[in-house]
Amino acid sequence: MNELGNIFKVVSFGESHGHSVGCVILGCPAGLKLNFDKIQQAVNRRKTNQQAYSSQRKESDSVEMISGIFDGMTSGAPICILIKNENAQPSDYDELKDIFRPGHADYSYYEKYGIRDHRGGGRSSIRITAPLVAAGEIANQLLLHSFKYENTTYVSQIGKVQMPELQNISNAMIEDSPLRCPHQETTKQMSTQIEQAKEQGDTLGGAISCRIKNMPPGIGEPIFGKLQAQLAHAMMSINTVKCFEYGEGKQSAIMNGSEHNDPFIYGEEKVKTITNHHGGILGGISTGMDINFRVYFKPISSIRQEQKTINTHFSEAKIQIGGRHDVCAVPRAVPIVEAYTHITLADLYLHQKLSKNL
Amino acid sequence: MNELGNIFKVVSFGESHGHSVGCVILGCPAGLKLNFDKIQQAVNRRKTNQQAYSSQRKESDSVEMISGIFDGMTSGAPICILIKNENAQPSDYDELKDIFRPGHADYSYYEKYGIRDHRGGGRSSIRITAPLVAAGEIANQLLLHSFKYENTTYVSQIGKVQMPELQNISNAMIEDSPLRCPHQETTKQMSTQIEQAKEQGDTLGGAISCRIKNMPPGIGEPIFGKLQAQLAHAMMSINTVKCFEYGEGKQSAIMNGSEHNDPFIYGEEKVKTITNHHGGILGGISTGMDINFRVYFKPISSIRQEQKTINTHFSEAKIQIGGRHDVCAVPRAVPIVEAYTHITLADLYLHQKLSKNL
Amino acid sequence: MNELGNIFKVVSFGESHGHSVGCVILGCPAGLKLNFDKIQQAVNRRKTNQQAYSSQRKESDSVEMISGIFDGMTSGAPICILIKNENAQPSDYDELKDIFRPGHADYSYYEKYGIRDHRGGGRSSIRITAPLVAAGEIANQLLLHSFKYENTTYVSQIGKVQMPELQNISNAMIEDSPLRCPHQETTKQMSTQIEQAKEQGDTLGGAISCRIKNMPPGIGEPIFGKLQAQLAHAMMSINTVKCFEYGEGKQSAIMNGSEHNDPFIYGEEKVKTITNHHGGILGGISTGMDINFRVYFKPISSIRQEQKTINTHFSEAKIQIGGRHDVCAVPRAVPIVEAYTHITLADLYLHQKLSKNL
Amino acid sequence: MNELGNIFKVVSFGESHGHSVGCVILGCPAGLKLNFDKIQQAVNRRKTNQQAYSSQRKESDSVEMISGIFDGMTSGAPICILIKNENAQPSDYDELKDIFRPGHADYSYYEKYGIRDHRGGGRSSIRITAPLVAAGEIANQLLLHSFKYENTTYVSQIGKVQMPELQNISNAMIEDSPLRCPHQETTKQMSTQIEQAKEQGDTLGGAISCRIKNMPPGIGEPIFGKLQAQLAHAMMSINTVKCFEYGEGKQSAIMNGSEHNDPFIYGEEKVKTITNHHGGILGGISTGMDINFRVYFKPISSIRQEQKTINTHFSEAKIQIGGRHDVCAVPRAVPIVEAYTHITLADLYLHQKLSKNL
Repeated sequence: MNELGNIFKVVSFGESHGHSVGCVILGCPAGLKLNFDKIQQAVNRRKTNQQAYSSQRKESDSVEMISGIFDGMTSGAPICILIKNENAQPSDYDELKDIFRPGHADYSYYEKYGIRDHRGGGRSSIRITAPLVAAGEIANQLLLHSFKYENTTYVSQIGKVQMPELQNISNAMIEDSPLRCPHQETTKQMSTQIEQAKEQGDTLGGAISCRIKNMPPGIGEPIFGKLQAQLAHAMMSINTVKCFEYGEGKQSAIMNGSEHNDPFIYGEEKVKTITNHHGGILGGISTGMDINFRVYFKPISSIRQEQKTINTHFSEAKIQIGGRHDVCAVPRAVPIVEAYTHITLADLYLHQKLSKNL
Repeated sequence: MNELGNIFKVVSFGESHGHSVGCVILGCPAGLKLNFDKIQQAVNRRKTNQQAYSSQRKESDSVEMISGIFDGMTSGAPICILIKNENAQPSDYDELKDIFRPGHADYSYYEKYGIRDHRGGGRSSIRITAPLVAAGEIANQLLLHSFKYENTTYVSQIGKVQMPELQNISNAMIEDSPLRCPHQETTKQMSTQIEQAKEQGDTLGGAISCRIKNMPPGIGEPIFGKLQAQLAHAMMSINTVKCFEYGEGKQSAIMNGSEHNDPFIYGEEKVKTITNHHGGILGGISTGMDINFRVYFKPISSIRQEQKTINTHFSEAKIQIGGRHDVCAVPRAVPIVEAYTHITLADLYLHQKLSKNL
Repeated sequence: MNELGNIFKVVSFGESHGHSVGCVILGCPAGLKLNFDKIQQAVNRRKTNQQAYSSQRKESDSVEMISGIFDGMTSGAPICILIKNENAQPSDYDELKDIFRPGHADYSYYEKYGIRDHRGGGRSSIRITAPLVAAGEIANQLLLHSFKYENTTYVSQIGKVQMPELQNISNAMIEDSPLRCPHQETTKQMSTQIEQAKEQGDTLGGAISCRIKNMPPGIGEPIFGKLQAQLAHAMMSINTVKCFEYGEGKQSAIMNGSEHNDPFIYGEEKVKTITNHHGGILGGISTGMDINFRVYFKPISSIRQEQKTINTHFSEAKIQIGGRHDVCAVPRAVPIVEAYTHITLADLYLHQKLSKNL
Repeated sequence: MNELGNIFKVVSFGESHGHSVGCVILGCPAGLKLNFDKIQQAVNRRKTNQQAYSSQRKESDSVEMISGIFDGMTSGAPICILIKNENAQPSDYDELKDIFRPGHADYSYYEKYGIRDHRGGGRSSIRITAPLVAAGEIANQLLLHSFKYENTTYVSQIGKVQMPELQNISNAMIEDSPLRCPHQETTKQMSTQIEQAKEQGDTLGGAISCRIKNMPPGIGEPIFGKLQAQLAHAMMSINTVKCFEYGEGKQSAIMNGSEHNDPFIYGEEKVKTITNHHGGILGGISTGMDINFRVYFKPISSIRQEQKTINTHFSEAKIQIGGRHDVCAVPRAVPIVEAYTHITLADLYLHQKLSKNL
């Protein structure tokens, strides 16, 4: 339950305000030459304090890979990744010790375990994804080594502002935007909206879109190992995600079969479909067409406005959350969506090596 | 990958036109008195030929439980469930042998395995869910034995027709509708729409909603074992499902935090929230409030209209699917959504027995 | 816990006197052409009533493969194997209903589950291995397809009679012996001893030896996936096995390092060791030298002599077991040891495909 | 494959001469008050340099628990344990870089992964068990919290010197002996033998015995989850172990059924057997009688005598191992055998909570 993947498997550990957050990667094949700079860069992209509307906690998020590497390559042994918590200020959270914050996991964790680590959300903090982003970058390098894997993941909605459909999106366009939205005009509108919410002490949700190019056909497993099921599992594991859809998604419910079916054709020495309503996956298995999916986030729960709630003695209480928090977490979630996608695809890619070719 | 659940785990096997479809349940505790009639009834609800707009394949779908039962109770041993394929007509599918049907898993399975069982979709057929529905009913009986579990699952949309929000929905209301929609007026509109699609040789998608009452708080596991992640995994494993959302779902992306946060209160000797935007789950763990989620289905791919596609030699081909197929599969998917929900919850319910209470 | 293997995984189900015994094989690659006659033959070798000193239960043990096969080949889908219980005579066991038989699992199952299927041992019967032997033969065919796999498994001890060391042992020699001992003189002594035990209403234990030739180096996983650990797990899962050893085994404890170390040499275009005290495995991974191990069985518990024990009301009771039982189960265990070895090696062989060769 | 256990599961990582060795414990219930001193003491018992005949590597082996602990209790989150490698001298191993040491995992790892971490055995070093011993002590504390668990594990043989059978063995008697043998006279003989081997630059094997008292009946799972199968798996995972036996073990093969069967009786308000040839386990499940098993170790492979072998270019080579190595590793393996036993039993104990008691 703290694990993502089956063959390429990542085991998560650590808490927001403990010693470290970390993970162990099992099942990464030996002999993969790693680009360590890119691993650190991936993690840096997730960091707080990247821009005005982000949380103020300052962490260097320096990635330590303490096992499984030899001569710059994966050795086949488990890869343990550690990121120390340097700027942990558990005392910031003392006033939260006895209160159940609305929208947070405080109450449900309390019911689950009987005890609760109140310091910055403990295990339920999004900070635990930092080492998973590093693991995702290793999965990315494995995929890049194996085929012409192309993944573009970007913010397509913040609050009520949605990006128009764009045909060609590059990672450069995404990085050009402080909000990781590859459309300049939309970025401006999103920024304005974030400023407004900030003034009101309020927070915003949004959406992230992901497109994968050059996926070989045949990746994904039938029944409960379907590519979309594994992706949905991974994405719905991200805090505050409330909806996952792929291909035409929710919209497909109002389409007719004659509209939605994508005819197969053969051209450029491969099988393709003329349209791509199916989103690159049929029967849970990749078709070779672009995979695309979208993930929707609720607004984050730590608002600055005073809220009513109850404390651990079940008495009424008021809470005004200070601390250091984002107005909108969606841009920072881009590297997380990417990382979980890389891990899911690397895992299913390795599975496929065992499906035939005796 | 053919398995659902971890402790209460169901292993699926069988093909649409082989000897049988079946499954094995592992991890069901001993001593559960089973109601076998209800198991057969659950499976019957999924059967074809229930109404005019359903497929014409006639199967008795008689459930055989060939292990794991002693004196009418679960014995703690694996429970193997078999449902024979009696009306399999593999020759119906001879003309499909060399063709890749649009929207179907024909091509992706072929790429995956190098070979393909073309007979009625083989392993990718929705028929493989029949024994899983039986397994789901056993999970249901386990949950009902454990607490006042209430699950209402119903069709809330077919094509463009959507049901209005209803406060109180009973399983009787759902069963009263031939389309499993608890709103009479909507049912009529849906029926009209299905008739139209049928005339056009076309097919329809739709949506299923699920509400769970009386869920104890504390169920679900952190990180990758989140209740919504496990539910999404299960639901996205159902053929033709393209979207999963819970709580406010996709809509939550345009809400502010101050709107979306549900204040905790204490009343009637338990912790509740005033509103329930969160959909009964916080931090991946149940809060005790009603759980609700929705699942969206694309229109099924077997349309009667002639379609262009290619054959296994990659040459252009035309296809007109005869055989026995539904216009809209959504009503028949209700017992599948239920069953997968029961299994997921039973599994997580058993997990919770090990979280504390040393 | 009802599963053997990780990638090539076999899930067991069924009871001795229920409808069937069976299993499901997950993870067998697609495209393996199966020899079905050999599968049935493997199962037949395990059957009762093969010779005077075997149990009298008559079963045809006809293997049905009800899924996962298409055109005589594995399709990549789960393979369900069923063997019906035709000669089940549950009433034979009525008098055992309320008694805890010495040496049997009656009492420990009762404590575990609160209920007990007393009919022929239910789930604890050795009969549940019949379909696993079929699964093992599929694993065998997978290994034979992949390399020049040679496995000779034979009875090397019955009671106090031990076979001398033999250099060359063929499967023909093993099958020539009614006791599956490749040494004629020893077979005679073993037979005499079995006759004596039979006259006394007593039972005998013994040992089985297994040698594997042509194993490629590199098979087995470090730490808890060691080849010897997986083999030991599989072998100790066989009813009545009390000891597992490989290489020099127990004897190695009294050897010096200078005696036990096997020097590496290079010859015939491969790395070898001059001696093979290590038994073909170093660090949990195959070296390419012959793998050899031995498994020791206690005498079976169903003796014909009257025994004292207690009943389920904890009162003293006497028991005289009638029914149809072996004097010595070791010869019949040969196909089981083989099958579990095949499954373990096929699983680890597939694992190795993912260790390197990115 | 780097994991031990299913519910209470320990994931191992780290190499002998890397940054750290460590592990992550998953599935430990929340609310267990930990005694940290005892955890450090357990690890200290495994350390080198405890006595003249041990390796000279000096490590403080200071246990860091960097997650999963809150207020001195387990929080239900994964517990990551780190032990830094402080005295790693990778250069000690430079001369081994291109050589395949006899009896070591050098060659088989090389074949498996294509690359090899030669520094002190890398992943195949026994040093990776240090954090697992800490994990074992947590499992021990879980068991001690749950029932009157008593585990005595001791050296019963070194080389040719075997300890006589003793009825009553306490942990104090074991700790009194520098060799962890609870029999003074035997300890002396063992010491003499070790001194002789040391003079000859040779090494010794031996055996460890384990007895468990007060085990509740019903622990262990049928078929492939048998208590003895899980114990054998764990024990055969320890480097240099060549044989596992329980109850009468290898000896049982020469006993008659009438001799070996243990009659059940009822006394002192519980079910017992008069004798205990079965070793506390029937049908893979504990009976409540004492569990006992024995594990046999080959002599360690790093001898000081010059040895012939080949190098990585497959040319003949001579090797004389310097470095810092034990003459006999068996006394230091006692805490490892203990730890793996604790983990296996804690895991199966938690499983049993789900077998009945709906």
